[in-house]
Formats: sequence, C-alpha cells, structure tokens
Amino acid sequence: MNYLRQFEPFIALPHLIKWLPISFIVGILAGTASAVLLVSLEWATDWRESHQWIIALLPLGGFFSGWIYHQFGQTVEAGNNLLLEEIHNPKEIIPFRMAPLVLLGTDLTHLFGGSAGREGTALQMGASLADQLTKIFNFQGASRRILLTTGISAGFASVFGTPLAGTVFGLEVLAIGRIHYDALFPSLIAAVVGNQVTLLLGLHHTVYRHAPSIPTLTTWGLISAIIAGAIFGIVARFFAQLTHKISHFFKAKISYPPIRPLIGGALVATIVGLSGTTKYIGLGIPTIVDSFYVQLPPWDFAAKLGLTALTLGAGFKGGEVTPLFFIGATLGNALSLILTLPTPLLAGMGFVGVFAGAANTPLASTLMGIELFGLQAGIFIGIACVVSYLFSGHSGIYVAQRISLNKY
Amino acid sequence: MNYLRQFEPFIALPHLIKWLPISFIVGILAGTASAVLLVSLEWATDWRESHQWIIALLPLGGFFSGWIYHQFGQTVEAGNNLLLEEIHNPKEIIPFRMAPLVLLGTDLTHLFGGSAGREGTALQMGASLADQLTKIFNFQGASRRILLTTGISAGFASVFGTPLAGTVFGLEVLAIGRIHYDALFPSLIAAVVGNQVTLLLGLHHTVYRHAPSIPTLTTWGLISAIIAGAIFGIVARFFAQLTHKISHFFKAKISYPPIRPLIGGALVATIVGLSGTTKYIGLGIPTIVDSFYVQLPPWDFAAKLGLTALTLGAGFKGGEVTPLFFIGATLGNALSLILTLPTPLLAGMGFVGVFAGAANTPLASTLMGIELFGLQAGIFIGIACVVSYLFSGHSGIYVAQRISLNKY
Repeated sequence: MNYLRQFEPFIALPHLIKWLPISFIVGILAGTASAVLLVSLEWATDWRESHQWIIALLPLGGFFSGWIYHQFGQTVEAGNNLLLEEIHNPKEIIPFRMAPLVLLGTDLTHLFGGSAGREGTALQMGASLADQLTKIFNFQGASRRILLTTGISAGFASVFGTPLAGTVFGLEVLAIGRIHYDALFPSLIAAVVGNQVTLLLGLHHTVYRHAPSIPTLTTWGLISAIIAGAIFGIVARFFAQLTHKISHFFKAKISYPPIRPLIGGALVATIVGLSGTTKYIGLGIPTIVDSFYVQLPPWDFAAKLGLTALTLGAGFKGGEVTPLFFIGATLGNALSLILTLPTPLLAGMGFVGVFAGAANTPLASTLMGIELFGLQAGIFIGIACVVSYLFSGHSGIYVAQRISLNKY
Repeated sequence: MNYLRQFEPFIALPHLIKWLPISFIVGILAGTASAVLLVSLEWATDWRESHQWIIALLPLGGFFSGWIYHQFGQTVEAGNNLLLEEIHNPKEIIPFRMAPLVLLGTDLTHLFGGSAGREGTALQMGASLADQLTKIFNFQGASRRILLTTGISAGFASVFGTPLAGTVFGLEVLAIGRIHYDALFPSLIAAVVGNQVTLLLGLHHTVYRHAPSIPTLTTWGLISAIIAGAIFGIVARFFAQLTHKISHFFKAKISYPPIRPLIGGALVATIVGLSGTTKYIGLGIPTIVDSFYVQLPPWDFAAKLGLTALTLGAGFKGGEVTPLFFIGATLGNALSLILTLPTPLLAGMGFVGVFAGAANTPLASTLMGIELFGLQAGIFIGIACVVSYLFSGHSGIYVAQRISLNKY
C-alpha cells in the first residue's frame, strides 16, 4: 500500500474546501440568471400572445438581434460551441458580455415570435458568469475546465428545475461516448444550488403529467420502446442536420449577418401568418403539456422541427432543447397511434428521448425524464434515451462536441 | 459532412440487431441465476435463524467451502476481480464452474452464519454465464468486453431489483473516474430483462421505507449532507482496507487455503456466541429495514463492518454490497444523533453512500438510491454518493478496478 494513500481523505478535503464555495457562487450566479431569463421569457411570451401583430415585425426583431451581435457580440457569437471549445482547448476567458447579449437576443426571439428554446441561453449565462471567477481565482488548466462545466450544469439545472440531470449534463455533453468525473462534485453542488436559488426567487417550473399507469414491461413493450427510441434518434439527427444545413446556407448566401435573421424572420412570420396559428413558435409549452393529455395532430412535431431549424439556422438566439422537448413529446404522442404504449408515457419518452439523441446525452436525459415524469416510467425512459442516442449518429446539435468513443 | 455519415442510422441497426437478442439471453440467464440465489439465500437464512446451533459449525462450513474452491475452483477464486481483469485485459473465457461454485460458497457462508452479501455472487453468476456465449458467437475484443459487462449489469440489476442502477454499475465499476458508453445499450437491455425475469419467477425484493418528508434543501442541510457523505466515504475506505489487510494477513500466515476460513469462521462464531446476537451475520436485512424506522445503537455499523471484513478476508464467499448497505444504513441512522436530517433520509443516504465510496460508483449508487428510496430524496442521495466517492480514496473493494482519472 502506497504510503501517501493513507492520507487520501485529507487530500479530498482541500478539493472540497476549494470547490464548495466556488460552486456555491456559480450556483447563485447561474440560478439568478436563469430566474431572470424565465421571468423575461414569460413576459415576452405573454406579451406576444396578446399582441400577435408583433409577429409581423419578426424580420425587424431578427435584424436588430443580428445587428447587436454583429456590433458587440462577434466574440461570443459561437454560443454553446464556444463553451465546449474552451473546455476542450482553453484559450481565453469567455467575455462577460455573452450573458446579457444572449439574454437580450433570446428575449427578442421570443417576443417577436421565433421558434426557439432557452437552455442555450441558460448554459451561456451560467458558464460566462462562472468564467468571470477565473480572473479572481487565477484559474488555469483543469480548474478552469471544471469551472466552466459547473456553469453549464448550474444553468441547465436551474432553467429546467432538474438538478441531477443538470449535474450529469455538464459532464456528458462535452464528448460523445464517455463521461469524466473530474467536475462531478463541483457540478453537483452548482446544479443543486442553482436550482434552489431559482426556486427561492419564486420561479415555478412547468409540472408535466406523470403517466397514470405504467404497463408491466413485456417483450412487446420492450420492442415498442426500442422502435420509439430509434424513431426519436432518427428525428433528432434530422433536426440537427437540418439546422446546420440551413445555417450553412444562410452563411454562404448572405455575407452581412444581420440580414440572415431578417430573411429567416420574414419566412417564419409568413408561415405563421399563412398557417394562422402561433402553436409552433416560441417555447411551445402549452402544446408540450397537451401532448400528455390529448391526441394531437401527427404533424405537430414536423411543423415545430421545421420552424425551429429555420429560426435558429437563420441566426436567431435561444436554445434548441425546449423545441426538442416539443418535437419529442408531440412525436411520442403521434406514435401512440401505432405503438401500444400509453400516450402520456410515449410523450414523456419522446420529450427526453429526442433531446438525448440530439445532444448525445443519454444519462442526463434519463435522469431528467425521471425528475420530470417520475421513477415509475424510468425503464421506458431509459430505453428511449439510450436507443435514440444510438440512432442519432455521431453529430448532434453541438458541433464542438468531441467524439471520444464511437457509438458502435 | 462525411458521405458515410448519412447512413449512420443504418449502421446503428446491425449493432441493435446483434446485441438485442444476446442481451436478452444474458438477461434471462442472469435473472434466473439471481432468482435461484435469492431463493436459496432465503432458505439458508431462515434455516440458520431457526437452528442457530449451526453457527458453531461455521469453521467446518468455512473449511468445506475453502476445500471445494481449493479442489475445483482455483481458476475462479479471484471472483469479481477476475471479471474486471478479463474485461480490461482479456485472456480466456471465464469457466462455467464459477457460477455453481460461487452459488454454493455463498449459500454455505449464509447457512453457517458468516457475514457477507450477495452482489458478488450475482455478478459472478451473470458474467460467467454470459461469457459462455463467447464460444457460441466466437466473440473477441470489444464484443467480449461488452458481453461480460452485460452479465455484470444483469446480475446487479436482478439481485437488487434496480435495473437502471444495474445498467450504470456495469459501466461504472470498471474504472475510477470515467464511464465509457460502448456497452450502454446491451447493458440496459440485459439489466431490464434480468430484473424482469427475476420478478416473473416470483421473487420479491425488500421494500425500504421512503423518508416520509424530505426537508427543503437549506445551506445547513447541504453542509450536513456533505458531512454525512464524507463520513460514509471514510468508513467505506476503512472497510475496503480492513478487508484487504485481513485477507493479506490470512494469506501470509496460512498457506493451505481451506484452513483460512476455518480459523476465520471460528473467530466469527466465537464473537457471535459471546455477543449473543445473530444481528450482525448473514445479510442483515431486518436491521437494514429497522434503520429506516427506529434509532439503533450507534455501534451497529462498526460491528457489521468488523464481522464482514473478517468473514470475507478469511476467504468465505459472498458479496460485500449488502453488508455495505447495512453499514451505511446503520451509520446514517447513528448520524441522525448529531446531524439535523431525518433518520430515514440519513439511513437511505448511508445505504447507497457507503456503497458508492467502497465500489467507486457514484452514479449507479445515486440511481439505486432513487430506485429504492424515491426521487424526492434524490438530491440528498446524490450529494451523499458523490462526496463519499470523493472521500473514499483511490482503492476500493475491487482491487482490479483501474484508475482512469484521479478524483482530485
């Protein structure tokens, strides 16, 4: 037995004493930022829904958002991918301006009626605020990577109210095929504190329906869950690829960045005007909630997928994840027409399953499913997330994600 | 975009078609083996408790068990460590005899009144049965590693009734500090099927009390949970080291292996006779259940720790994990004397927390805690498991576990 090994618990103590207060601070920063984001998004969404004429101005909102980023935000334009890139290959501190810019950009997207999410915003606020501590503590190398990871975990945990999923998400999103545990303790503390701060500030997360009865797992049920998971994965992959393709197209055809969301916004606003419904723009929470209760049109997922890919591909700010929840929940709902699993169970499986495939985070998604839809559905949720991960290929919504181990 | 990437979902399909039936078979084998183990342990425990004179024969039982392994089991003596070693550095197929030998050895331990567990037995039966498929399918390299991992996952899942924890345990136990996802899908299917088979065969797992009310997480509650986790980790480390030291001592002093459990059995039987209680031998399920309801003597954990280290260190067969649950649950119960968290919550945190530290499996242990004690306790359970993992050092109960990444 190595002599030094005898003192190991005392070596753990400095790690704890170092990271407990820092993770605590990151949690407070990210939790507060998420609270501000959630309040402002609620306000923007309510205002848009009661003043729907504003959607006609979506091109202007897009131009304004694009112009602000072009003037002040070129260093933080890469968003989530900048965070992942910095963790893998640290160069310089994430500018503080990332936080207010992405908050403003996301609020503009939702106020004017783009289709987008909020997790990207929460991650970018959490991580950029966390990274400001790098200067204070003079962090380098591993410490800074851990710090950035805690910001991601705390942002995710607090914006969705899922601390365990947030913890694992921060570790899991960095690379496909493996998790490293270096940031495990700091991420957990930051996620738990971040979530608690958002709750203490009076925010309430949407409560989704737990499937009232979960069937016993039969061989056919297992196969149904695998089929559902495979479809979730293929759709997740399609969403990621479509978004990237639209983004490449806009970048190739339009050199002045603010014009891209102007054109994209005009397209989205036209589609919304022609379709006569605001169901597929914004976060889409009401439809997500509905998907656990009633049979929805089977094309809902495709409409949301197209509008979100267009919104984000054109350069609007916001996240991909809440739209992925929408796409997954409505797709699961539609699959209950052909698979013999209960509709609310399939909606929950899709909610986290499509996300698992698109973000390549099967464990965080499974934990999220358990945190949101209850443990009883755990096995079905786990199968949906793991199979979706298997079928979504080796690229996802985060292009800076590394491939550490091939999926098969 | 790489041309081949377009066909990725079709590349996932062969992986699924290959591993679904194989994992299914592994699940059936491991689940059936776990059912046999659980039934036989129930019988052995009941018989011993109603014929306690048999404990006086524990030295003979130990000699018999040791003699059988010395005659027929030298190739499988290393048990769990042989499995981990084969996964890291494949040499030859695990002999089939591992399964019946470890089953018999474990039943002898429990019939005659040693203090031990059952997870080691379930893992060894699951993996050795799974590995027999290596010949049939002519598996090599990665495929064989995955196959062994599925056996571990299915064994763990079915013996404890925790399929999600079993899935992650198989991946997480291989090395400290990282998880690789190569066996994720096969392990999940094997774990889910294994658990289902054990249930279908009529086995019922112990149901533990869910803490009736979980306090809101305050700063003091967070610190209390961290203190508890640190103590769980230090005790886990002490247990692992004591067991290894006793084992080394017996091996150094006694060259003929069957004499080791004879001497060890005489010591355990003498201690049980002098103490006048059978509370600390066998699996100890009744005391584990009690620890969620009533205040227990604060030395319970230490008595179980000492007797288990002596039993296993002397060479009796069985697992470490159920004794770790006992040690943790009673230690958590004792900590409720000084920490202001509810007793059933601390018992649950200790149940999985000490195990997390000793096996270096914080995520599997957190999932297990959620599967056994409910999601409401999830944050406290997560903190206990992660902090215990941090404080248990870089060695654990499985000496063949690799260190992939230092904990701090």
